[in-house]
Amino acid sequence: MESAAALKTVDKKVNDTAEQLLDATASLLSERPTIDVSLSDIAKRGNLNSALIKYYFGNKMGLLLALLERDAVSSMKSLKHLVDMQLPATQKLKIHISGIINAFHRSPYLNRLIHYVVESGDQKSSDRVGEIYVGPMLAAYQQIVAQGVREGSFRWVDSKFLYYSLVGACDHIFYASYAGKLTGGFDDRNLNDDVKQLYIEHVQKMCLDGLMLRD
Amino acid sequence: MESAAALKTVDKKVNDTAEQLLDATASLLSERPTIDVSLSDIAKRGNLNSALIKYYFGNKMGLLLALLERDAVSSMKSLKHLVDMQLPATQKLKIHISGIINAFHRSPYLNRLIHYVVESGDQKSSDRVGEIYVGPMLAAYQQIVAQGVREGSFRWVDSKFLYYSLVGACDHIFYASYAGKLTGGFDDRNLNDDVKQLYIEHVQKMCLDGLMLRD
Repeated sequence: MESAAALKTVDKKVNDTAEQLLDATASLLSERPTIDVSLSDIAKRGNLNSALIKYYFGNKMGLLLALLERDAVSSMKSLKHLVDMQLPATQKLKIHISGIINAFHRSPYLNRLIHYVVESGDQKSSDRVGEIYVGPMLAAYQQIVAQGVREGSFRWVDSKFLYYSLVGACDHIFYASYAGKLTGGFDDRNLNDDVKQLYIEHVQKMCLDGLMLRD
Repeated sequence: MESAAALKTVDKKVNDTAEQLLDATASLLSERPTIDVSLSDIAKRGNLNSALIKYYFGNKMGLLLALLERDAVSSMKSLKHLVDMQLPATQKLKIHISGIINAFHRSPYLNRLIHYVVESGDQKSSDRVGEIYVGPMLAAYQQIVAQGVREGSFRWVDSKFLYYSLVGACDHIFYASYAGKLTGGFDDRNLNDDVKQLYIEHVQKMCLDGLMLRD
Protein backbone atom coordinates (compact mmCIF):
# COMPACT_ATOMS: atom_id res chain seq x y z
CA MET A 1 0.00 0.00 0.00
CA GLU A 2 2.74 2.34 0.93
CA SER A 3 4.62 1.84 -2.33
CA ALA A 4 1.42 2.31 -4.37
CA ALA A 5 0.78 5.54 -2.53
CA ALA A 6 4.37 6.62 -3.13
CA LEU A 7 4.03 5.80 -6.84
CA LYS A 8 0.84 7.81 -7.01
CA THR A 9 2.66 10.76 -5.45
CA VAL A 10 5.43 10.49 -8.03
CA ASP A 11 2.87 10.23 -10.85
CA LYS A 12 1.09 13.27 -9.55
CA LYS A 13 4.34 15.23 -9.45
CA VAL A 14 5.08 14.24 -13.03
CA ASN A 15 1.63 15.35 -14.12
CA ASP A 16 1.87 18.52 -12.11
CA THR A 17 5.15 19.47 -13.77
CA ALA A 18 3.80 18.79 -17.26
CA GLU A 19 0.61 20.71 -16.44
CA GLN A 20 2.70 23.55 -15.04
CA LEU A 21 4.63 23.76 -18.32
CA LEU A 22 1.38 23.76 -20.31
CA ASP A 23 -0.04 26.48 -18.06
CA ALA A 24 3.12 28.56 -18.49
CA THR A 25 2.90 28.16 -22.29
CA ALA A 26 -0.79 29.11 -22.35
CA SER A 27 -0.14 32.12 -20.17
CA LEU A 28 2.74 33.38 -22.35
CA LEU A 29 0.89 32.78 -25.62
CA SER A 30 -2.16 34.66 -24.32
CA GLU A 31 -0.04 37.78 -23.92
CA ARG A 32 1.55 37.76 -27.37
CA PRO A 33 0.25 38.46 -30.84
CA THR A 34 2.31 35.61 -32.32
CA ILE A 35 3.35 32.04 -31.49
CA ASP A 36 6.94 33.22 -31.35
CA VAL A 37 7.76 32.02 -27.85
CA SER A 38 11.00 30.35 -26.81
CA LEU A 39 11.50 27.28 -24.63
CA SER A 40 13.53 29.31 -22.17
CA ASP A 41 10.75 31.92 -21.84
CA ILE A 42 8.30 29.13 -21.07
CA ALA A 43 10.62 27.55 -18.53
CA LYS A 44 11.18 30.91 -16.88
CA ARG A 45 7.45 31.63 -16.64
CA GLY A 46 6.86 28.20 -15.08
CA ASN A 47 9.87 28.49 -12.75
CA LEU A 48 11.16 25.24 -14.21
CA ASN A 49 14.23 24.08 -16.07
CA SER A 50 13.81 24.11 -19.86
CA ALA A 51 15.30 20.60 -20.02
CA LEU A 52 12.00 19.42 -18.54
CA ILE A 53 10.21 20.48 -21.71
CA LYS A 54 12.40 18.17 -23.74
CA TYR A 55 11.89 15.46 -21.14
CA TYR A 56 8.09 15.63 -21.18
CA PHE A 57 7.27 16.83 -24.70
CA GLY A 58 10.31 16.12 -26.88
CA ASN A 59 10.41 19.58 -28.44
CA LYS A 60 8.48 22.81 -28.89
CA MET A 61 6.03 21.29 -31.38
CA GLY A 62 5.35 18.45 -28.92
CA LEU A 63 4.60 20.98 -26.21
CA LEU A 64 2.29 23.03 -28.44
CA LEU A 65 0.44 19.91 -29.60
CA ALA A 66 0.02 18.77 -25.98
CA LEU A 67 -1.49 22.17 -25.20
CA LEU A 68 -3.94 21.80 -28.10
CA GLU A 69 -4.79 18.24 -27.05
CA ARG A 70 -5.56 19.36 -23.51
CA ASP A 71 -7.91 21.99 -24.85
CA ALA A 72 -9.47 19.69 -27.45
CA VAL A 73 -10.28 16.97 -24.90
CA SER A 74 -12.27 19.38 -22.80
CA SER A 75 -13.90 21.22 -25.74
CA MET A 76 -14.95 18.08 -27.58
CA LYS A 77 -16.37 16.58 -24.37
CA SER A 78 -18.59 19.65 -23.98
CA LEU A 79 -19.63 19.45 -27.63
CA LYS A 80 -20.60 15.77 -27.32
CA HIS A 81 -22.55 16.56 -24.18
CA LEU A 82 -24.39 19.34 -26.04
CA VAL A 83 -25.25 17.08 -28.99
CA ASP A 84 -26.67 14.46 -26.59
CA MET A 85 -28.89 16.93 -24.74
CA GLN A 86 -32.68 16.98 -25.05
CA LEU A 87 -32.86 20.31 -26.87
CA PRO A 88 -34.05 21.46 -30.30
CA ALA A 89 -31.31 21.65 -32.98
CA THR A 90 -31.72 25.42 -33.24
CA GLN A 91 -30.90 25.76 -29.55
CA LYS A 92 -27.90 23.42 -29.80
CA LEU A 93 -26.43 25.45 -32.65
CA LYS A 94 -26.89 28.72 -30.75
CA ILE A 95 -25.13 27.29 -27.70
CA HIS A 96 -22.35 25.87 -29.87
CA ILE A 97 -21.70 29.24 -31.57
CA SER A 98 -21.48 30.97 -28.24
CA GLY A 99 -19.17 28.15 -27.05
CA ILE A 100 -16.67 28.59 -29.91
CA ILE A 101 -16.51 32.38 -29.62
CA ASN A 102 -16.18 32.20 -25.83
CA ALA A 103 -13.38 29.61 -26.15
CA PHE A 104 -11.43 31.82 -28.58
CA HIS A 105 -12.05 34.81 -26.34
CA ARG A 106 -10.85 32.97 -23.25
CA SER A 107 -7.77 31.59 -25.04
CA PRO A 108 -7.02 33.90 -27.98
CA TYR A 109 -3.92 31.89 -28.83
CA LEU A 110 -5.98 28.80 -29.68
CA ASN A 111 -6.71 29.46 -33.32
CA ARG A 112 -3.28 31.01 -33.92
CA LEU A 113 -1.80 27.84 -32.50
CA ILE A 114 -3.93 25.62 -34.74
CA HIS A 115 -2.90 27.67 -37.78
CA TYR A 116 0.74 27.56 -36.68
CA VAL A 117 0.82 23.78 -36.27
CA VAL A 118 -0.95 23.22 -39.57
CA GLU A 119 1.30 25.63 -41.44
CA SER A 120 4.48 24.23 -39.94
CA GLY A 121 4.52 21.78 -42.81
CA ASP A 122 4.81 18.91 -40.27
CA GLN A 123 2.24 16.52 -41.73
CA LYS A 124 1.96 14.33 -38.63
CA SER A 125 1.17 17.25 -36.32
CA SER A 126 -1.20 18.71 -38.86
CA ASP A 127 -3.05 15.40 -39.16
CA ARG A 128 -3.26 15.22 -35.38
CA VAL A 129 -4.98 18.62 -35.26
CA GLY A 130 -7.49 17.24 -37.76
CA GLU A 131 -8.10 14.19 -35.58
CA ILE A 132 -8.59 16.01 -32.30
CA TYR A 133 -10.64 18.97 -33.52
CA VAL A 134 -12.08 18.60 -36.98
CA GLY A 135 -13.24 14.97 -36.90
CA PRO A 136 -15.37 15.31 -33.75
CA MET A 137 -16.74 18.69 -34.88
CA LEU A 138 -17.79 17.40 -38.30
CA ALA A 139 -19.53 14.44 -36.61
CA ALA A 140 -21.39 16.82 -34.29
CA TYR A 141 -22.43 19.08 -37.19
CA GLN A 142 -23.83 16.11 -39.09
CA GLN A 143 -25.97 15.14 -36.10
CA ILE A 144 -27.21 18.66 -35.43
CA VAL A 145 -28.10 19.28 -39.09
CA ALA A 146 -29.91 15.91 -39.33
CA GLN A 147 -31.85 16.70 -36.16
CA GLY A 148 -32.82 20.16 -37.42
CA VAL A 149 -34.04 18.73 -40.72
CA ARG A 150 -36.07 16.06 -38.85
CA GLU A 151 -37.58 18.74 -36.64
CA GLY A 152 -38.57 20.74 -39.70
CA SER A 153 -36.56 23.79 -38.68
CA PHE A 154 -33.47 23.54 -40.94
CA ARG A 155 -33.17 23.08 -44.67
CA TRP A 156 -30.65 20.40 -45.58
CA VAL A 157 -27.11 21.73 -45.73
CA ASP A 158 -23.75 20.05 -46.33
CA SER A 159 -22.37 19.76 -42.79
CA LYS A 160 -18.77 20.18 -44.02
CA PHE A 161 -19.73 23.47 -45.66
CA LEU A 162 -21.53 24.52 -42.49
CA TYR A 163 -18.37 23.71 -40.54
CA TYR A 164 -16.12 25.83 -42.79
CA SER A 165 -18.44 28.81 -42.91
CA LEU A 166 -19.38 28.82 -39.23
CA VAL A 167 -15.93 28.17 -37.75
CA GLY A 168 -14.45 30.68 -40.22
CA ALA A 169 -16.94 33.32 -39.07
CA CYS A 170 -16.18 32.67 -35.39
CA ASP A 171 -12.41 32.57 -35.99
CA HIS A 172 -11.97 35.64 -38.14
CA ILE A 173 -12.81 38.36 -35.63
CA PHE A 174 -9.94 37.06 -33.47
CA TYR A 175 -7.56 36.22 -36.23
CA ALA A 176 -7.93 39.33 -38.33
CA SER A 177 -6.82 41.62 -35.57
CA TYR A 178 -5.24 43.95 -38.15
CA ALA A 179 -8.73 44.99 -39.18
CA GLY A 180 -9.40 46.09 -35.63
CA LYS A 181 -6.25 48.15 -35.49
CA LEU A 182 -7.02 49.89 -38.73
CA THR A 183 -10.59 50.78 -37.97
CA GLY A 184 -9.91 51.91 -34.43
CA GLY A 185 -12.17 49.06 -33.46
CA PHE A 186 -10.95 46.08 -31.55
CA ASP A 187 -8.35 43.38 -31.85
CA ASP A 188 -7.92 40.09 -30.03
CA ARG A 189 -6.37 41.86 -27.10
CA ASN A 190 -9.08 44.45 -26.54
CA LEU A 191 -12.14 42.72 -27.89
CA ASN A 192 -14.08 43.26 -24.70
CA ASP A 193 -16.99 41.28 -23.26
CA ASP A 194 -19.66 43.57 -24.71
CA VAL A 195 -18.31 43.38 -28.27
CA LYS A 196 -17.84 39.63 -27.90
CA GLN A 197 -21.46 39.21 -26.78
CA LEU A 198 -22.74 41.33 -29.70
CA TYR A 199 -20.66 39.28 -32.13
CA ILE A 200 -22.05 36.03 -30.70
CA GLU A 201 -25.58 37.34 -31.30
CA HIS A 202 -24.63 38.45 -34.82
CA VAL A 203 -23.25 35.03 -35.83
CA GLN A 204 -26.15 33.22 -34.17
CA LYS A 205 -28.70 35.27 -36.09
CA MET A 206 -26.87 35.05 -39.44
CA CYS A 207 -26.38 31.32 -39.07
CA LEU A 208 -29.81 30.40 -37.73
CA ASP A 209 -31.68 32.60 -40.21
CA GLY A 210 -29.36 31.26 -42.90
CA LEU A 211 -30.32 27.69 -42.08
CA MET A 212 -33.94 27.88 -41.07
CA LEU A 213 -36.68 26.99 -43.49
CA ARG A 214 -38.75 29.95 -44.56
CA ASP A 215 -42.53 29.82 -44.44
CA MET B 1 11.65 63.37 -77.94
CA GLU B 2 14.19 60.66 -78.48
CA SER B 3 15.48 60.83 -74.92
CA ALA B 4 11.91 60.74 -73.54
CA ALA B 5 11.25 57.62 -75.59
CA ALA B 6 14.49 56.10 -74.36
CA LEU B 7 13.55 56.93 -70.79
CA LYS B 8 10.16 55.31 -71.30
CA THR B 9 11.87 52.15 -72.54
CA VAL B 10 14.11 52.08 -69.48
CA ASP B 11 11.08 52.63 -67.22
CA LYS B 12 9.26 49.81 -68.91
CA LYS B 13 12.22 47.49 -68.42
CA VAL B 14 12.33 48.40 -64.72
CA ASN B 15 8.63 47.66 -64.37
CA ASP B 16 8.94 44.46 -66.35
CA THR B 17 11.67 43.17 -64.08
CA ALA B 18 9.73 44.01 -60.93
CA GLU B 19 6.61 42.44 -62.42
CA GLN B 20 8.58 39.38 -63.41
CA LEU B 21 9.78 38.98 -59.81
CA LEU B 22 6.22 39.36 -58.53
CA ASP B 23 4.99 36.78 -61.07
CA ALA B 24 7.74 34.37 -60.02
CA THR B 25 6.80 34.82 -56.36
CA ALA B 26 3.09 34.29 -57.06
CA SER B 27 3.83 31.21 -59.11
CA LEU B 28 6.05 29.64 -56.41
CA LEU B 29 3.65 30.47 -53.58
CA SER B 30 0.75 28.94 -55.49
CA GLU B 31 2.54 25.60 -55.51
CA ARG B 32 3.38 25.45 -51.81
CA PRO B 33 1.33 24.93 -48.67
CA THR B 34 3.35 27.54 -46.76
CA ILE B 35 4.92 30.97 -47.30
CA ASP B 36 8.32 29.42 -46.73
CA VAL B 37 9.96 30.52 -49.97
CA SER B 38 13.51 31.79 -50.30
CA LEU B 39 14.77 34.77 -52.29
CA SER B 40 17.04 32.49 -54.32
CA ASP B 41 14.10 30.22 -55.24
CA ILE B 42 12.20 33.26 -56.45
CA ALA B 43 15.15 34.57 -58.44
CA LYS B 44 15.66 31.15 -60.00
CA ARG B 45 12.00 30.85 -61.00
CA GLY B 46 12.11 34.31 -62.59
CA ASN B 47 15.50 33.67 -64.26
CA LEU B 48 16.81 36.76 -62.52
CA ASN B 49 19.54 37.59 -60.05
CA SER B 50 18.35 37.64 -56.42
CA ALA B 51 20.16 40.95 -55.91
CA LEU B 52 17.38 42.48 -58.02
CA ILE B 53 14.86 41.63 -55.30
CA LYS B 54 16.84 43.72 -52.82
CA TYR B 55 17.17 46.45 -55.43
CA TYR B 56 13.45 46.69 -56.19
CA PHE B 57 11.80 45.62 -52.92
CA GLY B 58 14.40 45.99 -50.16
CA ASN B 59 13.80 42.55 -48.66
CA LYS B 60 11.47 39.57 -48.68
CA MET B 61 8.76 41.36 -46.70
CA GLY B 62 8.90 44.24 -49.19
CA LEU B 63 8.44 41.80 -52.05
CA LEU B 64 5.52 40.03 -50.38
CA LEU B 65 3.85 43.35 -49.56
CA ALA B 66 4.29 44.49 -53.17
CA LEU B 67 2.59 41.28 -54.30
CA LEU B 68 -0.34 41.93 -51.96
CA GLU B 69 -0.54 45.55 -53.10
CA ARG B 70 -0.70 44.50 -56.74
CA ASP B 71 -3.55 42.16 -55.93
CA ALA B 72 -5.34 44.64 -53.67
CA VAL B 73 -5.30 47.41 -56.29
CA SER B 74 -7.09 45.21 -58.79
CA SER B 75 -9.49 43.60 -56.28
CA MET B 76 -10.52 46.85 -54.64
CA LYS B 77 -11.08 48.47 -58.04
CA SER B 78 -13.52 45.67 -58.92
CA LEU B 79 -15.23 46.02 -55.56
CA LYS B 80 -15.68 49.76 -56.01
CA HIS B 81 -17.05 49.18 -59.48
CA LEU B 82 -19.53 46.65 -58.06
CA VAL B 83 -20.71 49.03 -55.33
CA ASP B 84 -21.30 51.76 -57.92
CA MET B 85 -23.37 49.55 -60.22
CA GLN B 86 -27.11 49.91 -60.68
CA LEU B 87 -28.05 46.65 -58.97
CA PRO B 88 -30.04 45.69 -55.86
CA ALA B 89 -27.94 45.24 -52.70
CA THR B 90 -28.81 41.51 -52.57
CA GLN B 91 -27.30 41.04 -56.01
CA LYS B 92 -24.17 43.04 -55.14
CA LEU B 93 -23.56 40.89 -52.08
CA LYS B 94 -23.97 37.67 -54.06
CA ILE B 95 -21.49 38.84 -56.69
CA HIS B 96 -19.06 39.97 -53.99
CA ILE B 97 -19.15 36.57 -52.23
CA SER B 98 -18.47 34.79 -55.48
CA GLY B 99 -15.67 37.32 -56.14
CA ILE B 100 -13.86 36.62 -52.84
CA ILE B 101 -14.06 32.84 -53.13
CA ASN B 102 -12.96 32.94 -56.76
CA ALA B 103 -10.01 35.20 -55.87
CA PHE B 104 -8.85 32.82 -53.13
CA HIS B 105 -9.34 29.88 -55.48
CA ARG B 106 -7.35 31.55 -58.24
CA SER B 107 -4.55 32.60 -55.85
CA PRO B 108 -4.68 30.25 -52.85
CA TYR B 109 -1.61 31.90 -51.38
CA LEU B 110 -3.43 35.20 -50.91
CA ASN B 111 -4.95 34.68 -47.50
CA ARG B 112 -1.91 32.76 -46.25
CA LEU B 113 0.18 35.73 -47.28
CA ILE B 114 -2.10 38.18 -45.51
CA HIS B 115 -1.95 36.08 -42.35
CA TYR B 116 1.83 35.77 -42.69
CA VAL B 117 2.42 39.50 -43.02
CA VAL B 118 0.08 40.30 -40.15
CA GLU B 119 1.62 37.67 -37.87
CA SER B 120 5.18 38.68 -38.68
CA GLY B 121 4.91 41.14 -35.84
CA ASP B 122 6.03 43.91 -38.22
CA GLN B 123 3.52 46.61 -37.27
CA LYS B 124 4.13 48.79 -40.32
CA SER B 125 3.49 45.96 -42.80
CA SER B 126 0.51 44.79 -40.82
CA ASP B 127 -0.98 48.30 -40.84
CA ARG B 128 -0.40 48.48 -44.59
CA VAL B 129 -2.44 45.29 -45.11
CA GLY B 130 -5.22 46.93 -43.15
CA GLU B 131 -5.02 50.04 -45.35
CA ILE B 132 -5.05 48.25 -48.70
CA TYR B 133 -7.64 45.56 -47.96
CA VAL B 134 -9.68 46.12 -44.85
CA GLY B 135 -10.38 49.85 -45.12
CA PRO B 136 -11.86 49.72 -48.65
CA MET B 137 -13.80 46.54 -47.86
CA LEU B 138 -15.37 47.97 -44.72
CA ALA B 139 -16.38 51.07 -46.67
CA ALA B 140 -17.99 48.90 -49.35
CA TYR B 141 -19.85 46.80 -46.75
CA GLN B 142 -21.24 49.92 -45.14
CA GLN B 143 -22.61 51.11 -48.47
CA ILE B 144 -24.10 47.74 -49.43
CA VAL B 145 -25.77 47.28 -46.03
CA ALA B 146 -27.19 50.82 -46.11
CA GLN B 147 -28.54 50.23 -49.63
CA GLY B 148 -30.13 46.91 -48.62
CA VAL B 149 -31.82 48.52 -45.62
CA ARG B 150 -33.11 51.38 -47.84
CA GLU B 151 -34.44 48.86 -50.34
CA GLY B 152 -36.26 47.03 -47.54
CA SER B 153 -34.44 43.76 -48.18
CA PHE B 154 -31.84 43.68 -45.36
CA ARG B 155 -32.26 44.13 -41.65
CA TRP B 156 -29.67 46.53 -40.21
CA VAL B 157 -26.43 44.82 -39.38
CA ASP B 158 -23.09 46.10 -38.08
CA SER B 159 -21.00 46.18 -41.27
CA LYS B 160 -17.79 45.38 -39.34
CA PHE B 161 -19.44 42.25 -37.97
CA LEU B 162 -20.66 41.36 -41.45
CA TYR B 163 -17.11 41.78 -42.71
CA TYR B 164 -15.60 39.44 -40.08
CA SER B 165 -18.23 36.75 -40.47
CA LEU B 166 -18.40 36.80 -44.25
CA VAL B 167 -14.67 37.04 -45.00
CA GLY B 168 -14.03 34.41 -42.31
CA ALA B 169 -16.50 32.06 -43.97
CA CYS B 170 -14.94 32.59 -47.43
CA ASP B 171 -11.39 32.28 -46.08
CA HIS B 172 -11.75 29.19 -43.92
CA ILE B 173 -12.37 26.57 -46.57
CA PHE B 174 -9.00 27.48 -48.10
CA TYR B 175 -7.12 28.09 -44.90
CA ALA B 176 -8.28 25.07 -42.94
CA SER B 177 -6.94 22.62 -45.45
CA TYR B 178 -6.15 20.18 -42.61
CA ALA B 179 -9.87 19.54 -42.28
CA GLY B 180 -9.97 18.47 -45.91
CA LYS B 181 -7.10 16.08 -45.47
CA LEU B 182 -8.69 14.46 -42.46
CA THR B 183 -12.11 14.00 -43.92
CA GLY B 184 -10.84 12.75 -47.26
CA GLY B 185 -12.50 15.82 -48.67
CA PHE B 186 -10.59 18.63 -50.29
CA ASP B 187 -7.82 21.00 -49.42
CA ASP B 188 -6.68 24.22 -51.07
CA ARG B 189 -4.81 22.27 -53.69
CA ASN B 190 -7.59 19.97 -54.80
CA LEU B 191 -10.64 22.05 -54.07
CA ASN B 192 -11.97 21.70 -57.56
CA ASP B 193 -14.27 23.97 -59.55
CA ASP B 194 -17.44 22.04 -58.69
CA VAL B 195 -16.81 22.10 -54.94
CA LYS B 196 -15.85 25.76 -55.16
CA GLN B 197 -19.11 26.57 -56.97
CA LEU B 198 -21.18 24.65 -54.40
CA TYR B 199 -19.41 26.48 -51.59
CA ILE B 200 -20.10 29.86 -53.23
CA GLU B 201 -23.80 28.97 -53.36
CA HIS B 202 -23.73 27.80 -49.73
CA VAL B 203 -22.18 31.05 -48.44
CA GLN B 204 -24.47 33.15 -50.64
CA LYS B 205 -27.57 31.43 -49.28
CA MET B 206 -26.43 31.49 -45.64
CA CYS B 207 -25.46 35.14 -45.86
CA LEU B 208 -28.43 36.41 -47.85
CA ASP B 209 -30.99 34.46 -45.81
CA GLY B 210 -29.12 35.56 -42.69
CA LEU B 211 -29.48 39.20 -43.66
CA MET B 212 -32.83 39.42 -45.38
CA LEU B 213 -35.88 40.65 -43.52
CA ARG B 214 -38.45 37.94 -42.89
CA ASP B 215 -42.08 38.50 -43.76
